Amino acid sequence: MHTHFNDEHISAFLRGDMRALARAISMVEAGDVQAEHLLAALTREGQRARLIGITGPPGAGKSTLTAKLAEVLLDRGERVALLLIDPSSPFTGGAILGDRIRMHAISGRPRLYIRSLGSRGSLGGLSRAVPPVVQLLERFGFDTIIIETVGTGQAETDVVETVDSVVVVTVPGLGDDIQAMKAGIFEIADVFVVNKADREGAEHAMRQIEEALKFGPREVPVFATIATAGVGVAAVLNALDEHYQTMLADGELTRRRERRLRKALHAYAASIVSGHLATWVEARLPRHWPDIESGRSDIYTCGRRLAEEFQAKDVKNHVRED
Amino acid sequence: MHTHFNDEHISAFLRGDMRALARAISMVEAGDVQAEHLLAALTREGQRARLIGITGPPGAGKSTLTAKLAEVLLDRGERVALLLIDPSSPFTGGAILGDRIRMHAISGRPRLYIRSLGSRGSLGGLSRAVPPVVQLLERFGFDTIIIETVGTGQAETDVVETVDSVVVVTVPGLGDDIQAMKAGIFEIADVFVVNKADREGAEHAMRQIEEALKFGPREVPVFATIATAGVGVAAVLNALDEHYQTMLADGELTRRRERRLRKALHAYAASIVSGHLATWVEARLPRHWPDIESGRSDIYTCGRRLAEEFQAKDVKNHVRED
Repeated sequence: MHTHFNDEHISAFLRGDMRALARAISMVEAGDVQAEHLLAALTREGQRARLIGITGPPGAGKSTLTAKLAEVLLDRGERVALLLIDPSSPFTGGAILGDRIRMHAISGRPRLYIRSLGSRGSLGGLSRAVPPVVQLLERFGFDTIIIETVGTGQAETDVVETVDSVVVVTVPGLGDDIQAMKAGIFEIADVFVVNKADREGAEHAMRQIEEALKFGPREVPVFATIATAGVGVAAVLNALDEHYQTMLADGELTRRRERRLRKALHAYAASIVSGHLATWVEARLPRHWPDIESGRSDIYTCGRRLAEEFQAKDVKNHVRED
Repeated sequence: MHTHFNDEHISAFLRGDMRALARAISMVEAGDVQAEHLLAALTREGQRARLIGITGPPGAGKSTLTAKLAEVLLDRGERVALLLIDPSSPFTGGAILGDRIRMHAISGRPRLYIRSLGSRGSLGGLSRAVPPVVQLLERFGFDTIIIETVGTGQAETDVVETVDSVVVVTVPGLGDDIQAMKAGIFEIADVFVVNKADREGAEHAMRQIEEALKFGPREVPVFATIATAGVGVAAVLNALDEHYQTMLADGELTRRRERRLRKALHAYAASIVSGHLATWVEARLPRHWPDIESGRSDIYTCGRRLAEEFQAKDVKNHVRED
């Protein structure tokens, strides 16, 4: 299926038509060839939104906390977008958003847009698809964009590490695995939340986290919440407001945004080049494969050779054309 | 610090010296320039090991299950390597392995090698570092290599999806998040385990998983375990043995191994090219940045232009040299 996006769609997008927004995001997600022109047209001089990232292990109650934070922001009169990052699947695909949304008391509220984003396809990977989608949401005019990820893997860390504020949500009773989780995630947290704080072990988890954060590069507040009952949510949002104001004042907000843009530019250029490289390597592999299988060569020697031939290929084309 | 690895080290490696193995892995992990030559020397005609991947959300008890599986394999007389994939951190870095190992009753057993691998650096990313390390472990002579990941992110999925058998471990009480976890992970599971099966909700979790697996491409057995007590571990290993024999018989093992090698070759070539590209883009960005900031250009137009200039650069050099 080829999605069209013409000048009329761009006008509709700029008028605030959510269907045009949804269509634009789908094109970016699918890596549509038209997406680049669309993004070039819609991402210049974009409005600025506040970006909040929510991450943490499965079962921590991130969706509930996200919904509660969004609710307070909507009550303030803000336009809010929720971007839910999902590991996608060929055979369970579409069901996820529904599952998450079912528990959202806020769905259907005006000035709210909820979008699920899968982790495959997407201009060459999850972390590459998120920045352009965020740019579209900013240009559309949202005041706050909350990006919620599932899991604590590298891809998720990449996604959230360039937002304005990162909330790491954990839960009592993770046992020794909290040690491992810490490692990847502690240094990116701006606000730490121990959710389901009515569960056994909540105080122990708070202490463990506060202890670990002592070794970190900066002060990070830790909050206990019971998101389902709304307990502690206002305190988390206050901390986020404070963090945002501090960053605005000291220039960190501008630095993070520039870093985000530069990263997206690098990723976009890399997706173009690596797409060409993959095709190039795939076409030449059959010639080299027998040597690798028989042990006469190895994948590193062969990989370097193909990479170098790829980088020099235009010379050969040029020479051949002469 | 520059690590040397000379012919004597290669001899030591081939004699079975674990310090030489550890040093070789460190070089690969650090992306040392010598690593390529080392790998070229050591990965040809490699022996074959059986590769088992263990993945699942934090708190599922993966480490305990990994240790119990390793124990049974060691009792059988096998040489076993455990590769623990960790999100790494500048400030908690080294502590993780210790934390995980503390609970391993098996540490210190002969014929066992345990290694933690961080997710940054590493020849350009976690999923790129794992295949060469696995090749080193194979060449060293391990019979079984168990790769355990933390988290359920894309990077983890990438790592485990080309091993011979994937065990997905989950736990009762993940709530709605199991829906999201399913999506990314159900299709890569060869064996599913509900650990901590003495917890409330275990039967419900088993039913949920069996229900979801019905929509999958193939039959996947689901086991209930209590890994801390060793309950169900033998059944999981039997299923893995059976899966391995089936794959051996029907050629799937060879296909998975070829896929793994091809993927590693692609990734290695990509790491070389993308390293050059990043330097290239970074050097030219200051010239383009004012246009992006002022809205005269955008990162996609600029990203494409730099990618195309990069791919054509040798032509220009060539022309210039004439």
